[in-house]
Amino acid sequence: MENTHAEADHRSSRRKYCGGVRAEDLDENFPVVNIDSNALDAVRLLAEHRLNGLVVVTDTSETPYAVLPASQVVRFIVPGYVQDDPGLAGVLTESMADHAAEKLSGKTIRDMLPKQRQHIPVADADDTIIEVAEVMARLRSPLVAVVKNDKLHGVITASRLLAAALKE
Amino acid sequence: MENTHAEADHRSSRRKYCGGVRAEDLDENFPVVNIDSNALDAVRLLAEHRLNGLVVVTDTSETPYAVLPASQVVRFIVPGYVQDDPGLAGVLTESMADHAAEKLSGKTIRDMLPKQRQHIPVADADDTIIEVAEVMARLRSPLVAVVKNDKLHGVITASRLLAAALKE
Repeated sequence: MENTHAEADHRSSRRKYCGGVRAEDLDENFPVVNIDSNALDAVRLLAEHRLNGLVVVTDTSETPYAVLPASQVVRFIVPGYVQDDPGLAGVLTESMADHAAEKLSGKTIRDMLPKQRQHIPVADADDTIIEVAEVMARLRSPLVAVVKNDKLHGVITASRLLAAALKE
Repeated sequence: MENTHAEADHRSSRRKYCGGVRAEDLDENFPVVNIDSNALDAVRLLAEHRLNGLVVVTDTSETPYAVLPASQVVRFIVPGYVQDDPGLAGVLTESMADHAAEKLSGKTIRDMLPKQRQHIPVADADDTIIEVAEVMARLRSPLVAVVKNDKLHGVITASRLLAAALKE
């Protein structure tokens, strides 16, 4: 957490001398989930809106706590013994395998996050397209959360960023 | 390549004893790009259709050669010296930074792929949801290509897979 905040502070304190499109011009509204909310509700949100990830927040801060890519949420429908031995996936019977809802019930978003906190794909509201792209590519994230005055301002997806870059 | 094919062969040769939803029931049509095609056209495709990735094929085979996530394509709008030193992203002037189209012109999809070939997120047409989920989570891919009779049959995104898992 310290690293991520240090990075954000450093970035936002730097003066920008040039015009052009900024992160806050590009970002979009995006569903946000609380870290202590129900994991199954979050999966429904991803599924229904066909999102490629979710921004996770806590009760104590309005800045994003984590970004949870949909491809990682998928891990939670894979039984632990299949994660340990992928070859077992093919020999599971349906009754053993397909109870995603059961596996998730009683779990929270917190349970779905990696035990060790990761770098968060976050950009400052006045970051340029290149700055957002650098963060996205480095953290291999399908989306970047944009923060303005310590609050989540919106989210930029990879395809949205590419569309903006082509227009420049 | 050998590893990936060996894995696919192993998976498809295994008999399935159970019913239920299979990869071929879930997959969707998805744009496919040839490895020697224009990189800029591929970026336009990602941007216009808001895709989270592309399936790459070659002239010599109808099976997928690679999957290129949109978050990795984004890397190509970041200048090399910013990739080496992320701190430089913020001090770039617009004229230095924002010529994505120029950076991509003359490049092919092949130029955008990692030098060393990666494991491909691919599933067999009769794979179960759990098998598709296992591949997606392990390779941290936003999509999985589904192959039937050595041909690309369609693509399953993470959100599509989650929607299917909830319905089981």
